[in-house]
Amino acid sequence: MARGGATTRVLRADEIAQIIRVRGLDAIFDELIERLTNALAVYEASKVLTPARDGFHYELPTPGLLEWMPAMEVGRVVAIKTVGYHPANPVERGLPTVLSSTSLYDPATGRLLALLDSTLLTALRTGAASAVATDILATPGPVVVGLVGCGAQAVTQLHGIARVRPVERVIVADADAMVAASFARRTWFVDRPIEIVPPGQRARLLGAVDVLCTATSVEVGAGPVIEDGEHAAWLHINAIGSDFHGKQELPVSLLERSLICPDLVAQCLVEGESQRACLDRLGPDLATLVQQRARFEAFRSDLTVFDSTGWALEDMVVAEMMLDHAAGLGLGITIELQRTTSDPRDPYSTLLA
Amino acid sequence: MARGGATTRVLRADEIAQIIRVRGLDAIFDELIERLTNALAVYEASKVLTPARDGFHYELPTPGLLEWMPAMEVGRVVAIKTVGYHPANPVERGLPTVLSSTSLYDPATGRLLALLDSTLLTALRTGAASAVATDILATPGPVVVGLVGCGAQAVTQLHGIARVRPVERVIVADADAMVAASFARRTWFVDRPIEIVPPGQRARLLGAVDVLCTATSVEVGAGPVIEDGEHAAWLHINAIGSDFHGKQELPVSLLERSLICPDLVAQCLVEGESQRACLDRLGPDLATLVQQRARFEAFRSDLTVFDSTGWALEDMVVAEMMLDHAAGLGLGITIELQRTTSDPRDPYSTLLA
Repeated sequence: MARGGATTRVLRADEIAQIIRVRGLDAIFDELIERLTNALAVYEASKVLTPARDGFHYELPTPGLLEWMPAMEVGRVVAIKTVGYHPANPVERGLPTVLSSTSLYDPATGRLLALLDSTLLTALRTGAASAVATDILATPGPVVVGLVGCGAQAVTQLHGIARVRPVERVIVADADAMVAASFARRTWFVDRPIEIVPPGQRARLLGAVDVLCTATSVEVGAGPVIEDGEHAAWLHINAIGSDFHGKQELPVSLLERSLICPDLVAQCLVEGESQRACLDRLGPDLATLVQQRARFEAFRSDLTVFDSTGWALEDMVVAEMMLDHAAGLGLGITIELQRTTSDPRDPYSTLLA
Repeated sequence: MARGGATTRVLRADEIAQIIRVRGLDAIFDELIERLTNALAVYEASKVLTPARDGFHYELPTPGLLEWMPAMEVGRVVAIKTVGYHPANPVERGLPTVLSSTSLYDPATGRLLALLDSTLLTALRTGAASAVATDILATPGPVVVGLVGCGAQAVTQLHGIARVRPVERVIVADADAMVAASFARRTWFVDRPIEIVPPGQRARLLGAVDVLCTATSVEVGAGPVIEDGEHAAWLHINAIGSDFHGKQELPVSLLERSLICPDLVAQCLVEGESQRACLDRLGPDLATLVQQRARFEAFRSDLTVFDSTGWALEDMVVAEMMLDHAAGLGLGITIELQRTTSDPRDPYSTLLA
């Protein structure tokens, strides 16, 4: 990335959409899975720092969460994603539940190098992370996919799974029948029938699928979103949604017989399914899964859970990938946000027109 | 601030400079002091949340610090300033040591409302905070001002003091003789002689001034930047620079006989002069100073220290003030960073051109 001058590259939602239209949605998804896999394969905690995310969690003016997720590849780049989680957005304001942007900084100077809308990118990278975990842990061959929660994140979850396994059939459930009904239209990229399970019969979903994904906005104390019961021995679950302290999408009894793979252990213990797991049941984190792939592919015949809370590393990977494509396609705008003048010791020198 | 649509207001360095040129530098400074005073007068920790700032502190590719400073006025707005501190910037890259930008978010939706360059604004708000403290704690009437460290922050320190006290004379010292020599040119707004004290004779500075400001980049372990000695009984000191864990600009013996006023106690205990103070010597914080002004004006005849580490509240105040002026003057640009489409549950709906 060019570091000259004092300019900031900006990638707006429209330009990110254009990149994806030009390159192709499946190709972008596959490239993201590959780039994320490569980043995980060489990941070392001492070289890519991702301190615990923090945020404001509030009830006013509406229940919501605004978090900052910093990451630094030592000596090369700092990325800070800010992400809002406001479950009332779709119904009350016609906005996505998750709205996000990412800023990249030059650690040599502190300059703001780039700003990207990350609303779609957050959905994509969350889907790509599930694809990486599913590819290693799910049963090989065609799979029946179940989804509990059919919102925006479920779209890229299904897409991610479909990039690493042939999808035979899809079964979905959502507390809102209208949301479930629109899921097929929103997942045109998977040319398979989508069966909707009414909320009351959600229990039979577990027994019917090879890969399950929970991507709900379930409130703290209201979970789990699916009951424990009979299921295929090789069931793989991606638990995505509702990452709050106290969050619970899966029954504890199910976690207790699973190999649980957190994306980032420290974070999952605070806001993931791992909160409810015995520490000795926690398996490899996402980077270890990739780095010791053959070892953990042996668990494809067992019950496995990917505990996805969303990791700042993933945000850095997708942001840089999009900036690369923008550079290649000549997309994005440049703003002189931090133009400085000849005298760095005179803050008022910028006042001389 | 307008919250419609999905647009983000952007204020670039040039536009901030234009606002200040149009409104007048002194008028802007005075308004900032007034707005900050008003914000401090009504400040309650339960209504304006400013969690401890955090950051990356590194040696590669160059020694530096990149921090995020979040603030939320509950129910109204979230502001996150990111600020880089890279002491090699001026000499090696012709850039300011401190480079910064601020993002404002709508807590109702998580949307990014505004992005501002905050390089000049950081210098201004730091000067304004010192002005507030100096106005309450320094001896009334004309003052002789001393400055140790003559970089960018010293410019707005002197300016802030000059807005609340007539300045009779200025005495400065800097480890770099060239930086000291250029200080008079950079502080044209104070029409007073500037006397330069050579580094070796820095000790006599303390005894010659009524208000002292330390705004250095002194490294951890290399302080203090001034020796203890004779001084006016009413000396007021603003300790500004080098906010690292282990930072020391002032001699401990001097702190031990001062009333120490931290801007934010928790932060100053980690990275301010307060680190070296006995807890029972810590006086009121900046908000308490303002809220109990008459009580603390009684200390004008005593030795007082304002321990300024920089507070996210100050950043929120200056950012909103500039956005107000930009709106009034029709300045700034609007970018459709987070344009969303008709279906908030379909991340791919943005792909439909």
